[in-house]
Formats: sequence, C-alpha cells, structure tokens
Amino acid sequence: MDTRATDSTWEVLSSLVQANDTAGVRALLDTLEPFDVARAVSRLTLEDRTRLLEALEPAEAADLVAELSDAQAARLIEGLSVAKAAAILDEIPSDDQADLLGLMPNPEAILEEMSPLEASDARRLLDYRPDTAGGLMITEYLAFRGTQTVGEIVADLERNRGSYADYSVQYLYVVDDAAKLEGVLRMRDLVFSSPDAALSSVMIRNPISLNASAPLDDVRQFFERRNYLGVPVVEADGRLVGVVRPLAVAEETGRKTTRQFLRVSGIVGGEEFRTMPMFVRSGRRLSWLSINIVLNIVAASVIALYTDTLAAAIALAVFLPMISDMSGCSGNQAVAVSLRELTLGLVRPREVLRVIGKEAGVGAINGVVLGALLAGVAMIWKGNAYLGLIVGVSLAANTLLAVCLGGSLPLILKRVRLDPALVSGPLLTTVTDMCGFFLVLSLASLMLTRL
Amino acid sequence: MDTRATDSTWEVLSSLVQANDTAGVRALLDTLEPFDVARAVSRLTLEDRTRLLEALEPAEAADLVAELSDAQAARLIEGLSVAKAAAILDEIPSDDQADLLGLMPNPEAILEEMSPLEASDARRLLDYRPDTAGGLMITEYLAFRGTQTVGEIVADLERNRGSYADYSVQYLYVVDDAAKLEGVLRMRDLVFSSPDAALSSVMIRNPISLNASAPLDDVRQFFERRNYLGVPVVEADGRLVGVVRPLAVAEETGRKTTRQFLRVSGIVGGEEFRTMPMFVRSGRRLSWLSINIVLNIVAASVIALYTDTLAAAIALAVFLPMISDMSGCSGNQAVAVSLRELTLGLVRPREVLRVIGKEAGVGAINGVVLGALLAGVAMIWKGNAYLGLIVGVSLAANTLLAVCLGGSLPLILKRVRLDPALVSGPLLTTVTDMCGFFLVLSLASLMLTRL
Repeated sequence: MDTRATDSTWEVLSSLVQANDTAGVRALLDTLEPFDVARAVSRLTLEDRTRLLEALEPAEAADLVAELSDAQAARLIEGLSVAKAAAILDEIPSDDQADLLGLMPNPEAILEEMSPLEASDARRLLDYRPDTAGGLMITEYLAFRGTQTVGEIVADLERNRGSYADYSVQYLYVVDDAAKLEGVLRMRDLVFSSPDAALSSVMIRNPISLNASAPLDDVRQFFERRNYLGVPVVEADGRLVGVVRPLAVAEETGRKTTRQFLRVSGIVGGEEFRTMPMFVRSGRRLSWLSINIVLNIVAASVIALYTDTLAAAIALAVFLPMISDMSGCSGNQAVAVSLRELTLGLVRPREVLRVIGKEAGVGAINGVVLGALLAGVAMIWKGNAYLGLIVGVSLAANTLLAVCLGGSLPLILKRVRLDPALVSGPLLTTVTDMCGFFLVLSLASLMLTRL
Repeated sequence: MDTRATDSTWEVLSSLVQANDTAGVRALLDTLEPFDVARAVSRLTLEDRTRLLEALEPAEAADLVAELSDAQAARLIEGLSVAKAAAILDEIPSDDQADLLGLMPNPEAILEEMSPLEASDARRLLDYRPDTAGGLMITEYLAFRGTQTVGEIVADLERNRGSYADYSVQYLYVVDDAAKLEGVLRMRDLVFSSPDAALSSVMIRNPISLNASAPLDDVRQFFERRNYLGVPVVEADGRLVGVVRPLAVAEETGRKTTRQFLRVSGIVGGEEFRTMPMFVRSGRRLSWLSINIVLNIVAASVIALYTDTLAAAIALAVFLPMISDMSGCSGNQAVAVSLRELTLGLVRPREVLRVIGKEAGVGAINGVVLGALLAGVAMIWKGNAYLGLIVGVSLAANTLLAVCLGGSLPLILKRVRLDPALVSGPLLTTVTDMCGFFLVLSLASLMLTRL
C-alpha cells in the first residue's frame, strides 16, 4: 500500500467512516503521518468526525485527538455523546484534560460521566488559571511517606508498573500525613540506596517547589535557570498538589506567543480554522473589522475638513494613503519590539519614557530617510519643491510620532489592563492617520499659493 | 536587604561592576529574580556587561547568560576575550552551545579555545540545521555495550555521579562497536533487573529513532504522538549521535513562531532589542521600510492617473485611505490564518484553490457588510447615493479580493520558496491598494456627472 498521503486521503477516510468500516479506518490511520492524520480528520464534515470518534476505542480516539489543536479537539469532543466524551477524556493526561474541558462552555455533564478519580483531578485543575503553575501541572505523580523504605518503594513500583506507566516518574515525592511536601528523591537515588533505608534518610529535604498560583513567567524563568525535569507544586498550606514539567511550560509559552500573533493580525476569540463554519469565521473577523472601520472613519474625517485645500492641490491626494500606510508600518515595527520585550520581561509597563527615548532616535533617522525619499519623488513628479517639502516633512514628523507611539502604546495599554496585542495596532493607526493627514493638509494650506 | 528590584537596579549593578566589586555583584545577582537579572544586565553598557562576565567564574557567567535571549547572549559572548568566551561555552549544554555559536559570524577562534571534547560536539551540531533533529539534539547521553551487565552500569553511574549530573539519564542507550544503536533501556529497568543480567537481555531492541536530518515539524509531531522523554537521533548509517528531548522541540517551535510574528510586523534579520546600537536598529527596520515605500509609490501611482476625476469629486479623496486600510486589515486576517494553518500542517502549499474557496465566502460576507456600512456613511455625509454606491461597491469587491489573496498568498509564496511571513503583507497591500484605488476612481469616472 502506498503510504504517501494525497489530498484525497480525507475522501478515502470519509467513505470508510460512512461505510462504518472501523477496521479500514484503523488500517488507513496507521499508514499516515501525524500531519496527514490531523489534516484528513480536520477536513471531514463535523458529522463524519463525530462518527469516526464514536467508532474508535476511547484510547485510540484519545491518540487521534492528541494530534489536533486544543481548540479543534475541544469542539470535536463536545459534539460526541457524553459517555463517549468522558471515556476519551479519561484516557488523556490531566493537564490536557483540563485544557480541553476549559475550552468547553459547559463541561459539567462530561465531568459527571468521567471516572471519579480523573474527574476530581480535572475539576481541581480547572480551578487554576491555565497560565499559572496550578494550570500547568499534571496530577500524575508518585508520593510516599518518609517512613517507607527504599525496598518497599521498589516493590511498589514493580507491582504497579502498568498503572504507573503514564506517570512522570523522574522524581518521587515524600509527604506527611497532611500531604505536605517533605522531600524529593530521584529515581536514580533508589538505584544507589540500600533497600532498608527509609525514604526520609535518602530524600532531599526542603525541596524547591512552586506555589500553585505562580504565574507562567515565573515558572518559565524557574526552568530557564535550572535543568530540572519537573518541580513540585504546592498550595499555600504546603500541600503537594501536582508537578510541572518544563515541556508544559514551553508549550504554554508557545501558545501564548501564537495567541499574541493572531490578535495582532486581527484574529480574535481564539484560533480560527478553515474547517469552522463560514458564518462563525466571518462574524469573528467582522467583530474586529467593524471597530476598525469606525476608527478609520474618524481618522478620515480630518481629510473632510480640508477638501478645499485638497481640491486646490489635488496632487496631495496621491500622498495621503502613502503617509498613512508608511506611518503604520513604522509604528507596527515598534509595537512588535515592545510586545516582544514585554514578553521577555526586558521592559516594564511603567518604563514608557525610557522606551520613547530609545525609539525617538530610530524614529528620527528613519523619518528623515523616508521623508527625503518621498520628497524627492514628489519633486521629480511635479517639479514643485514645496510639494516635496510638505510631504517630506509630514512623513518625517509622522514617522517619528508613529515609532514613539508604537513603542510606548503596548506598555501604556498593559498598565491600564487592555490587551496590547489587540488594541495597539488599531489605536496606533488611527492616531497616526489623523496626525499624518493633518500635517500634510495644514502645511499645504499654509503654502497653498506655492503649490 | 530589600530584594525587590527597582528600575535603578541596573545602576547599582553598573557601579558595582565599575568598582570591580565582584563579591558585591554576586550578592546583588543572588537577590534578584531571573527577570530582573535579565533586565538589569541588558541595560548595562556593552563595556560594563563585558566587564561583568569577565569578572565572574565561567560557570556563574554561563548561568547569567542562560537568562538572556540567544541573540543577546551570542553578542555578549562574542565581545569577550576568546579564552573567557570558550570557558563560558564549555559550561553550557551542547544544544545551547551550538545555538549561540551558530549566531556568531566567526565562531572558529572560540571553538579552538574550547575543551576539545566540547568543541568537537559543538562543531558536529553546527553542521546540522537548527530546525532538524540534529540541530535540536544534545550530545550528553549515556551509551553502553550490550555485553555489559546491569551491575557494571549501576557501578559506573555511581562512580561518575558528578560528571553525569548534566546528562539526561532517563534512558541509557546500547550501541555496537560501530556506535550503531541497538537498544534502549530506562533508568527504572536497572532498578528492576538482576545485577548479573546483560544489557542486551533487558534492553528494548530496535528502538524508535529519528534521522538527524528529520525536520522540526516531524520531530514535533513525533512527541505529540508519544509521551517520551527523549528520542535517540541516528545518522543515515544507524550511528547514534544524540538525543532530542521534547523540551528542545517545544522551545524551537516557540522560537519559530516568534520569528514569524516579528517578520510579519516588519522586524527582519532576527530579534531586535532596545539595547542594540541605534544605527543597527534603524538600519534593519529601514531595510524593510524602504522596500515598502517603493511598493507604496507604485500603488499610489494609480491615483495619479485619475487626478482629473478626483478633482471633480474631491469627496472621494476622503475614502481612498480608508479603502486601502480596511482592505489591508481584512487581507492580513486571512494571511494570519494561512500562516497558522501552514505551521500546523493543516494546509499544504498546493491547496491554493481550496483556500480561495474557503475564503471567498468569508470575504463576500464581510465585504458586503463593510461596504454597506461605508456606503451608508458616504450617503449620509454628502447626501449622494452614487458616492455611496461607488465607495460601497469598491470596498465590498476589494475586501473579497483582499481576503482571497491574503489566504492564498502565503501558500503561493511557500511554493516559490519565499518567506510567507515576510513577503505576504507588503505584496498584499500593494495589490489591494492598486485595485481599491482603481475601483473607486474608475467607477467614479463612469458616474462623474452624478457626483
């Protein structure tokens, strides 16, 4: 069988699903690379996708779901029967469970059907914000008492080999009667210790731990500093509640970067996939566009105030969209640098003046270069030095403004708790458009007899 | 001592560095959170930063460097004496070594000074592209022969506890005389095995491995499917050359997303930090802006062809920048969705027609809504239905074009091996500006008597 996936793989999958040929589906999925599985599945109709997941065993369905994005997976599971959804979620690690359930508007029915142990873990994780240590942790860890011996633990591990297979057993944790964290030991400490030794005698005491409410940035910096495979997470009272692995941190950081990127580009309300219904996609995009068009109308009203000037020097109309676009480009570069420095913690929201100081130089240089270029073009085109002067000075001044504003706006928005990724762009272009149009047209009004 | 970092922390650090007070520097750095270390260090002058790293022990300097971004760290290390740079790099894990050396224009002098073992590993990693399994792997793994016994290995591990501390010892690898990978065993397999057992009798044979040239996407999908802590990397001849951990994959994926975000915003040539010299920052931003201004001039030349029409109906000049900006916004939303779907492997470069089909619906709905809105505004403002008709129809048609083009352009650019993140935006706005201006002005020319 040719294992190379083609564009029509999903059609084959679709017909197998519609024929209820579960064996055929399994055989096909086995030959596909994960990329191709994700693509083929996401191209099925919602009905076929639902039928596919219902037909597979819960563990198989969980593997398949793992290859989709969280947003896609959550929507898919929501569409299943409650019993099936619960069975699939039982097969998924606790941190992913909570991520998926957190994306569903009403996860309670599914939680009711899940195995009580899994459901109680998932409920606990759902209480934490996804970008905190509590939201990032897994609850599959192994904890023992300090009075137990190395030999007992080795025997326990061997006995439960199967059920511990999903556990992250790099570290073993030692807790007291109240589940408070007392110590940690590594797997290899078991190898090197006498079977009779009590865990309390071989464990590392007072281990480093993170509070469940620690924000993502702190957790990320923790792992950047230390080459650990995991860190225990405790509640304020010292109770061990989970373990954060660096992988979960890197993945959440990536998700955060992706969300930021999408919001900067005007994709709001989470990721958009082309498999979503057209009206959902259209509506979400319109929600952002309709605010933008209002802002655009406000900005363009400056031009409306100067139609007489414009009529007297119609060549200016050629330059207005250019000054608007170029100022936007320059400003957005500064926005991107500020968003990045905010993410890395290299700049704080209150350092607005320092950022403006740093941007002013760049804005001045780039403004002069771009302004001179545009002035030259204008002079050559119309042979009028005043026209060149007007558009050149306007672009130079507006570039300086756009760069300073673009650099500082994300910091200011962060301080007033608005999302810098979402708001910086529209606000920046509105202000720079208004100023740019005003500069060109008011300068032109002053020199109207020379144009 | 108050451990809360203030904005002047860097000034304290700076004066300690200038006073050559290494003990004071250590004491200060110890009180700071990683975020604050990164911020304070990145705010020092290049001279002070260099002096700081020269004063610290190589291991301390390596810890400090780990808190900076790769781009910052590489520039800092490059500025040190070759001996110091080599000593610091010796203390850094092999994958990070290669990342940093790969960012230096001329790493050879430093490699010469590094410890021969570290240098040869780093050289080997430098030969791999950073976004392949070879570029992602670490070379700190433990490999043994199948004829060795479990007892020998446990003794070896215990003997070398110190020097193996940096190693990723979740798995042990078994290789033959030619270093070909024969098997793998987990740390816990040692715990549960008789000391007399040969490794070949307890290892998992024919373990899964990745080829060193496997691209990042394949490696990422590998770990999404499997809950492994690492996967061995082999050359085409089966020789074991390293181990990829899922963390390295998640981090590289995050870096790739970040680079894409920055390029979409017009930040080219790698990350920009405000600590870079002003002329470097200005020059890099200008390189992208100067191409943009040329494209803008090309687009605006359409307006120049219609100055007579514009002079006769000056109200149109108010709408030209709006149609340019709104079309750009609509198109960039589609670009972002396509870039994301390309990254996730949900769409292939050749599926241009499918994407256009999917976008056309959204573009048509949003075009009609936005066009109607703008038409209404124009009609109310000037009381002229023809003006409303012209700008409304133009915006509607241009939105449809922008959305279809924005969705398909990233795919087309990927096929012709241009960077979609960098090229999509400028190309999109040039085309949509030209078409938008042409639509408004040519429709107006047809209805000039009615305006």
